[in-house]
Amino acid sequence: MISGTTTLIAHVGYPTFTFKSPMIYNPWFDKNGIDAVVVPMGVKAEEYPEFFRYLFKLTNIRGALVTMPHKVTTIDLVDEITATAEVAGAANVVLLRDDGTLLADQFDGAGFVRGVRHRGFDPAGRRALVVGAGGVGSAIVASLAAAGAGTIGVFDPDDAAADGLAERITKHYPTIEVGTGSADPAGYDLVVNATPLGMNAGDPLPVDVSRIAPSTFVGEVVMTHELTPFLRAARERGCRVQIGKDMLFEQIPAQLEFFGFGTATPDELRAVSPIRE
Amino acid sequence: MISGTTTLIAHVGYPTFTFKSPMIYNPWFDKNGIDAVVVPMGVKAEEYPEFFRYLFKLTNIRGALVTMPHKVTTIDLVDEITATAEVAGAANVVLLRDDGTLLADQFDGAGFVRGVRHRGFDPAGRRALVVGAGGVGSAIVASLAAAGAGTIGVFDPDDAAADGLAERITKHYPTIEVGTGSADPAGYDLVVNATPLGMNAGDPLPVDVSRIAPSTFVGEVVMTHELTPFLRAARERGCRVQIGKDMLFEQIPAQLEFFGFGTATPDELRAVSPIRE
Repeated sequence: MISGTTTLIAHVGYPTFTFKSPMIYNPWFDKNGIDAVVVPMGVKAEEYPEFFRYLFKLTNIRGALVTMPHKVTTIDLVDEITATAEVAGAANVVLLRDDGTLLADQFDGAGFVRGVRHRGFDPAGRRALVVGAGGVGSAIVASLAAAGAGTIGVFDPDDAAADGLAERITKHYPTIEVGTGSADPAGYDLVVNATPLGMNAGDPLPVDVSRIAPSTFVGEVVMTHELTPFLRAARERGCRVQIGKDMLFEQIPAQLEFFGFGTATPDELRAVSPIRE
Repeated sequence: MISGTTTLIAHVGYPTFTFKSPMIYNPWFDKNGIDAVVVPMGVKAEEYPEFFRYLFKLTNIRGALVTMPHKVTTIDLVDEITATAEVAGAANVVLLRDDGTLLADQFDGAGFVRGVRHRGFDPAGRRALVVGAGGVGSAIVASLAAAGAGTIGVFDPDDAAADGLAERITKHYPTIEVGTGSADPAGYDLVVNATPLGMNAGDPLPVDVSRIAPSTFVGEVVMTHELTPFLRAARERGCRVQIGKDMLFEQIPAQLEFFGFGTATPDELRAVSPIRE
């Protein structure tokens, strides 16, 4: 029950209709008697820097969940970023600390890696292709690198985005073999769609699924559908898959800790959420 | 259940701990399947004009409930104000219209007058004293004038505030006898505390209750306690009273209509609110 004592977590992005976090966080807050609420706030890119500044003047705000299109912008708007956010070049959470300063971190990649590990795929020493070098793709790459991936392929239609990410990875993890310029999934142990393709009907598939081996693990960041056309095609080839929402449920425990709300398991979160599957 | 499609009504003010509207609106939205939520946002006066500007850039906001200390400031931040807000010199609701413009109105006074009428006191032709010429006091005075009060006494420690309000009333309602400069309740049929006195322990009473006649109707705007020390003293003298929350429950149906959410009766609102009494 929202009241005058309730602490706010702003969920900022645009458009808002795909937001899932309010329906995971808020039932869990209710269940655990935590007087806090996640509030979706649709903010367009051109308004974001100024809105962000005044948002954190609110006297009852503790932090923000940041989603498209603001994840990259956010790193320039805070006082400090974590190493993960720095490598990823993006942030998806902001904490207003007691001293009034803002700390940004990035849990998309950690959520993704925790998810595939829980499904039996350990990235250590393996070959991973990530298609999409935006905020979430970069975050997944950063976390795959931290998890010890042997080879990382990065593809983005914007070569500069892919190259910039490759450079940041090489700078921090010089032993990883990094490739850019190709979305061909052949030969990879892990293939990840980190583009928005699949959000809208009629989107093309992000890669040529016919070139994915059945032994490959296939992951997805799009949360619009339970099973995107991409994951459906991969599953038809025999691949193990991880849906976009899994990444979300896996990362929320880490976010809860970051905000100081304790922690939860993905199963505990699913048990009270209407979007558990 | 808040989701990415939920429409926001911001409840702006500072401090937030006395806010009641979220606990009236939100259960009613839930009960009626309306995908909207009232969100308390603590905003200090010095941040308000800029925050207000960016708040209405949100893509999922329909309006705002405005409370202390922003009710007076708000009239200068919108594109249009209603006649009631103009006389009151303050606003407590803002609507973002389809054309992108902002309309402000003031329902505190209407809520107060509807409440006393429902309790059997008709202000028409009667003598009313309102102590406190801030946003809510001015709103009550404006609505008492519109309801045909014969005499209106206005007292505020800030003479200029009381005099300004008296002038606005005289301009719009030249036949009403308006007095300022005294908080003596003797001889009045209706006495209203429209100051914050009573919010904090140890506050003095707003008027000398020993000079209120038992036949006088006594009203209150402070919502911190069910029965403030002022109302308790008035009731001990035999007066009929109206608590601060009554004003709130009476005005919310008008606000719901203003925002385009349909309407409700005070009893329907109370039936689902945890602060029904």
